[in-house]
Amino acid sequence: MALIVQKYGGTSVSNPERIKNVVRRVAKFKALGHQIVVVVSAMSGETNRLIALAKEMQAYPDPRELDTVVSTGEQVTIGLVSMGLMQAGLKAKSYTGAQVRILTDSAFTKARILSIDEQNISNDLANGYVIVVAGFQGIDQTGNITTLGRGGSDTTGVAIAAALHADECQIYTDVDGVYTTDPRLVPEARRLKTITFEEMLEMASLGSKVLQIRAVEFAGKYKVKLRVLSSFEEDCEGTLITFEENNKMEQAIISGIAFNRDEAKITVRGVPDKPGIAYQILGPISEANVDVDMIIQNLGVDGSTDFSFTVHRNEFDKAMEILKNKVQGHIGALSVVGDNKTAKVSVVGVGMRSHVGIASKMFRSLAEEGINIQMISTSEIKISVVIDEKYLELAVRVLHKVFDLDQEPA
Amino acid sequence: MALIVQKYGGTSVSNPERIKNVVRRVAKFKALGHQIVVVVSAMSGETNRLIALAKEMQAYPDPRELDTVVSTGEQVTIGLVSMGLMQAGLKAKSYTGAQVRILTDSAFTKARILSIDEQNISNDLANGYVIVVAGFQGIDQTGNITTLGRGGSDTTGVAIAAALHADECQIYTDVDGVYTTDPRLVPEARRLKTITFEEMLEMASLGSKVLQIRAVEFAGKYKVKLRVLSSFEEDCEGTLITFEENNKMEQAIISGIAFNRDEAKITVRGVPDKPGIAYQILGPISEANVDVDMIIQNLGVDGSTDFSFTVHRNEFDKAMEILKNKVQGHIGALSVVGDNKTAKVSVVGVGMRSHVGIASKMFRSLAEEGINIQMISTSEIKISVVIDEKYLELAVRVLHKVFDLDQEPA
Repeated sequence: MALIVQKYGGTSVSNPERIKNVVRRVAKFKALGHQIVVVVSAMSGETNRLIALAKEMQAYPDPRELDTVVSTGEQVTIGLVSMGLMQAGLKAKSYTGAQVRILTDSAFTKARILSIDEQNISNDLANGYVIVVAGFQGIDQTGNITTLGRGGSDTTGVAIAAALHADECQIYTDVDGVYTTDPRLVPEARRLKTITFEEMLEMASLGSKVLQIRAVEFAGKYKVKLRVLSSFEEDCEGTLITFEENNKMEQAIISGIAFNRDEAKITVRGVPDKPGIAYQILGPISEANVDVDMIIQNLGVDGSTDFSFTVHRNEFDKAMEILKNKVQGHIGALSVVGDNKTAKVSVVGVGMRSHVGIASKMFRSLAEEGINIQMISTSEIKISVVIDEKYLELAVRVLHKVFDLDQEPA
Repeated sequence: MALIVQKYGGTSVSNPERIKNVVRRVAKFKALGHQIVVVVSAMSGETNRLIALAKEMQAYPDPRELDTVVSTGEQVTIGLVSMGLMQAGLKAKSYTGAQVRILTDSAFTKARILSIDEQNISNDLANGYVIVVAGFQGIDQTGNITTLGRGGSDTTGVAIAAALHADECQIYTDVDGVYTTDPRLVPEARRLKTITFEEMLEMASLGSKVLQIRAVEFAGKYKVKLRVLSSFEEDCEGTLITFEENNKMEQAIISGIAFNRDEAKITVRGVPDKPGIAYQILGPISEANVDVDMIIQNLGVDGSTDFSFTVHRNEFDKAMEILKNKVQGHIGALSVVGDNKTAKVSVVGVGMRSHVGIASKMFRSLAEEGINIQMISTSEIKISVVIDEKYLELAVRVLHKVFDLDQEPA
């Protein structure tokens, strides 16, 4: 008998029929003798509907009141799921964030969980209840309703699992796990049985949006066994996210190929090579709320250097304008050039820590296909390159093949 | 400077535009220097939508979970109203029932208020905030969300007003007050400037559904000054419900003509005149959840009597069947006869306590129009008669005229 936390996203509870599917799965696990805590999101579309109403009332909705309004989405779901479980003959009980007492700070719309009182839930579990908890929400020290920000329901699931010392936290979503790359691009892509916590972080931040980064970090911190599964498929074991690297010893060097199509590249040329120059370039960019991804600066030659970085394609024009009007003259750079028809491709895997030659193998494979590498950035467990957007699909397919990702590891 | 509680029903907050009307009215009162607490219902249609969802999940929705689900309706409204007030430049803060701490018993879907913690609201009022409270909901001793039943928002308004010792509780609705009778039937009907608590009870129970009976009772118990106004008209003072009878000394004897079109009359004839017979007749009726309105039993003659009562027209067939199949033979009655084409007309007024001849004036006026009275029932402040439905409009018009209700009282 295990204690399992199951988190279901908005598409899994989008209408009464889908909620009944959730009920069937919970009933199946319960019949096996497990204790179950269900964490749910708002029915899909509901949060957006509520935010739209709020914006009709106030141009920039007050964060406290916005949280009061949007938190109702999950509150409706917990009631409906509990009713469905009872209709199926199970004992069930719903808990809002306040009722659990998921204590958060007071940073409305992006609160952080401080503590969880697990006592009542534990008692109810011991008495045979399935517990249904509202994701995404909490309560602060003075009783204000808070929300954890978009995707916060994953974090709630992991946090509840940590507080209860659950055996596993299962995140049900509309994909059945983490793949070696996007199957729409590479039909040979395989679902990974396991992936390490750090690889997952790299894969997620690179665009494989299966799990909220924050939930993964939380799971890492509290060593919660996390599994991603499909809520629409039966008998699929999904992908387990592990935190013990020795589990990976016999596994593949590379776990997956991540990519991001929306990357735009900007280079400031002929930058005087002196202290503070990076801040003078990126300061105005971040003040304009433009997120920067890769940053590259080469060794300077003759007292000057080129400074490059990437931004989301939608923010390319804004960033270019800031650099040309506010930065270039100010710092005495030669020119600002950019390209918003680029893409980023990354190979990810903890195995590369102990294997040399991954980078050269990657670069050679791309060269053999005539793909020019425009930028390179590396971390301990990933190598990212920026290339011309038109080569993206080819590059992903080639790398997927070269690193044997279409084969089950021995 | 006064402390005013304003309660707005579902139609008054049914969309952002209407909420902005509420905001304008609140701002007007605030500008006059008053302290304002706003109590709101769910946006119209929302509660029904949520109940429908619940019924899709569970044939008979679990009461605790149903309350968790439907209470979200008011929670959305308080956030939206608060945002609107802030957009208008006011300080505003929302409170759910749980956040106020409106403590109720645990009778889910029909909970009763036990106590209200007014401390936080008082502090916020003193600091210049407009307070926006979710009507209809509370929390029980163990933290479960409860609701007060349909129309419970009126009760919340009155209870908050009582707890805060407010100067007035204003109930905004889609009518602009209590009328001497239905203006659709009698164009000369006048809005009453005041009505006593007891008259209001009689008017409400007789079909003038302006206020929830329970809220009126609550107001009476705690001597809350209650006013009914239209949320769609400006500068209308509505109807004040008073609790001091001496206020009425100079006023009209009769305050209004109430009526009910949906009355069906049933008579059990030749009932043995012995103890327990009323219970033997009405017991099976109430067990079948049929509500009985008027009950009349005349003095017996020769050891037998006729027993009459009225029910809602929709339940006429059900009641007749029960009486014929389960009661008539059992008690040895002669026959069961009924008529579902009847209506009830009542004259209501605390003044009749100290004035004789009201009944005879009423009966004479009806007789002069050839209207036969089928049943009569009286209380201290009302006289009700059951008549053929086809005479309803005529009877109401005649009585309205005869008792000078089209004239302002001297």
